[in-house]
Amino acid sequence: MVGSFDMVDVIRSKRDGERLTDDQIAWVIDAYTRGDVGDEQMAALAMAIFLRGLDRTETARWTEAMIDSGERMSFADLGKRTTDKHSTGGVGDKITLPLAPLVASYGVAVPQLSGRGLGHTGGTLDKLESIPGWRADLSNEEFLAALRGVGAVVCAAGASLAPADRKLYALRDVTATVDSIPLIASSIMSKKIAEGTQALTLDVKVGSGAFMKDLDAARELAGAMVDLGHDAGVRTVALLTDMSTPLGRTVGNALEVRESVEVLAGGGPADVVELTCELARSMLALAGIEDADVQERLRDGRAMDSWRAMVRAQGGDPDGALPVAAHTQDVLAESDGVLTRLDALAVGVASWRLGAGRARKEDPVQLAAGIELHAKPGERVRAGQPLLTLHTDTPERFDRAHATLAGAIDIDPETPDGTGAPGSVVLGRIEQPTG
Amino acid sequence: MVGSFDMVDVIRSKRDGERLTDDQIAWVIDAYTRGDVGDEQMAALAMAIFLRGLDRTETARWTEAMIDSGERMSFADLGKRTTDKHSTGGVGDKITLPLAPLVASYGVAVPQLSGRGLGHTGGTLDKLESIPGWRADLSNEEFLAALRGVGAVVCAAGASLAPADRKLYALRDVTATVDSIPLIASSIMSKKIAEGTQALTLDVKVGSGAFMKDLDAARELAGAMVDLGHDAGVRTVALLTDMSTPLGRTVGNALEVRESVEVLAGGGPADVVELTCELARSMLALAGIEDADVQERLRDGRAMDSWRAMVRAQGGDPDGALPVAAHTQDVLAESDGVLTRLDALAVGVASWRLGAGRARKEDPVQLAAGIELHAKPGERVRAGQPLLTLHTDTPERFDRAHATLAGAIDIDPETPDGTGAPGSVVLGRIEQPTG
Repeated sequence: MVGSFDMVDVIRSKRDGERLTDDQIAWVIDAYTRGDVGDEQMAALAMAIFLRGLDRTETARWTEAMIDSGERMSFADLGKRTTDKHSTGGVGDKITLPLAPLVASYGVAVPQLSGRGLGHTGGTLDKLESIPGWRADLSNEEFLAALRGVGAVVCAAGASLAPADRKLYALRDVTATVDSIPLIASSIMSKKIAEGTQALTLDVKVGSGAFMKDLDAARELAGAMVDLGHDAGVRTVALLTDMSTPLGRTVGNALEVRESVEVLAGGGPADVVELTCELARSMLALAGIEDADVQERLRDGRAMDSWRAMVRAQGGDPDGALPVAAHTQDVLAESDGVLTRLDALAVGVASWRLGAGRARKEDPVQLAAGIELHAKPGERVRAGQPLLTLHTDTPERFDRAHATLAGAIDIDPETPDGTGAPGSVVLGRIEQPTG
Repeated sequence: MVGSFDMVDVIRSKRDGERLTDDQIAWVIDAYTRGDVGDEQMAALAMAIFLRGLDRTETARWTEAMIDSGERMSFADLGKRTTDKHSTGGVGDKITLPLAPLVASYGVAVPQLSGRGLGHTGGTLDKLESIPGWRADLSNEEFLAALRGVGAVVCAAGASLAPADRKLYALRDVTATVDSIPLIASSIMSKKIAEGTQALTLDVKVGSGAFMKDLDAARELAGAMVDLGHDAGVRTVALLTDMSTPLGRTVGNALEVRESVEVLAGGGPADVVELTCELARSMLALAGIEDADVQERLRDGRAMDSWRAMVRAQGGDPDGALPVAAHTQDVLAESDGVLTRLDALAVGVASWRLGAGRARKEDPVQLAAGIELHAKPGERVRAGQPLLTLHTDTPERFDRAHATLAGAIDIDPETPDGTGAPGSVVLGRIEQPTG
């Protein structure tokens, strides 16, 4: 235990731009978790941190204190190397679904403790729950057995990991203090480090559909997380990837599972395949497996075998029929030309409004709701052709989804083909700590 | 009523340095007062305001919204002009006691809605309560009768005036967001404007014993308050006055009453007399009475008559014996020389620790506790002479008071007499709105 502090002094220090000491940080997080520091005081501190920042040492101590608020897992006895992936969240980001079984097929363990969707970004657990029988709530024994066997497990992070983060995140969410780079970095990394993974590949999204709207901010966040991983002894690499337009051609739970299965069958959209392979190579390299021909594993069926085993290990039927929405409506191209913009945020929000996401964490989701994309930026379209198909079980939601998409689509008749298409979905890479 | 807003959006706007709209401000204050906006959200907004500021228009709207949260008094039917005074609080600041009856002796009304002491600054109500029989809790009828008769009334501000300020101040106190100039200005002025005074003289203290430690900050606060008064139709003037050393030669409730009576009898310390007269001239000028010879009224007994009537009107016995502390101890000069510094904050805190003040608003105070000053900065002292006498009913408090005073007293053998003495207690004056 650490000494006791006056919370008003701690808030005042940060408010005035001073560094918090190691003991102050340890005390604040512990006292807040125990309820000795109230939400109103933590909210003031969070805003002071938002506006004044935390330096690298403070962020590392903050992260450690959050880890220390709960249990710390260890995979030392597993008999396999562990390599994990975390995405900061985007629209149509189903990458975990093909990626985890692909990487696990090399004999490494991929413990994916995932979340549910909130707001316009989807959650991996919601997606997998569209598979008949699949369940996220594994016992500790089931979890370890699946890791030893299949190697890839996707389940809900337990409440025992970094409970301070859970409490603080809920507070930040209502106090406009979410988008602080040190607080985001420590929130993500405290859970990942507490999970006990030996290696971590971060997918830091950049663009309208991501937390980070521009590359500089994303690079700063990625650097902060790589530093935190490095300082905690976790081999950590970050990719900066495009989230200006949705990933792949589907957004929504069951729709994204279908697309993921296409990728595992050797097909699927180029951007999803590219990102899956880039992340797989990074995860494998961090686990000591260099130069793996991951594309071949998607083509030869071994990644698919691993997927089917993973789904079955969690009670799912890989051949079960996925839910289909009761109603669909198309959004048509208004003119001839090249699709130069299809805004990720608008598509994410529209999908959420169709029922694919939730506004509050206790809300249910519609597994079949979502949006199919019939064109991607850079592709030529003709007036009147379907650009998007909206899916929902509750057709009264179509109007708000259409309204959300107004202004989210640009078609330019003058521009050459390919305009607006990102050359590569990977925009950058951070492999070393910043200092 | 105004429209409804998402509090997270409001916090985010201020966090990002944007202006809050009139409607946002009206909504925030109303929703917070009603409990629809929680303390944690208001704390985040208060910190964002602390660090990002409020401009003149925002501060005016914020003040209006706080006034609108409660009742608004009016003295239009009183048949007398009203002229009020407010001090931002200091150590040994007993000025209201001689000032209110002095000004009222000219036939104007001085409605002094005062507070109790908290921390190192004393409260006028605590001081007056050391007079046997005196009580602060007047009914509305008693209050108005006293204003019509004696003219000077000192009583507790009712809970019905600017209740939003009461709630917000308690929150700011625990979230290190007190020292924000727009929030201090709106807190003070919302209550003063709601009280319905027609004219207001502000005594903005500057120095170690004051909220504002330097002249620039005090000038900014004074300017903000003069602007708010002007915009609300209250004739407002601010004096900037020294609070680097205690005012007068006594600190503590009954001790300060005794000194105030000396001033009303034509004697008393020069700085207390000077400030009383300066403030009286300002208050009278704002009520249309120019060039009053206020010093003469202190000498000729008319101010004293007014004081005795004021005390009697609130049940007090002006001839009653004031309480005397059970124990005293002296602080002696450690060397010969000129007293160049006697720190206001240290003396205030020491007095508070002797029992004169309270740590929490529900604590009692010792009416007789406090500190007498036997020398003021600029005066020559000899080693071993008493500099201070500490008074308390609980002698176990002496040690902490002595410890607080260590380092608060400088004596210089080399320097000429008068060094460290402020030329005048009035350091500046703001008589016009800033723009």
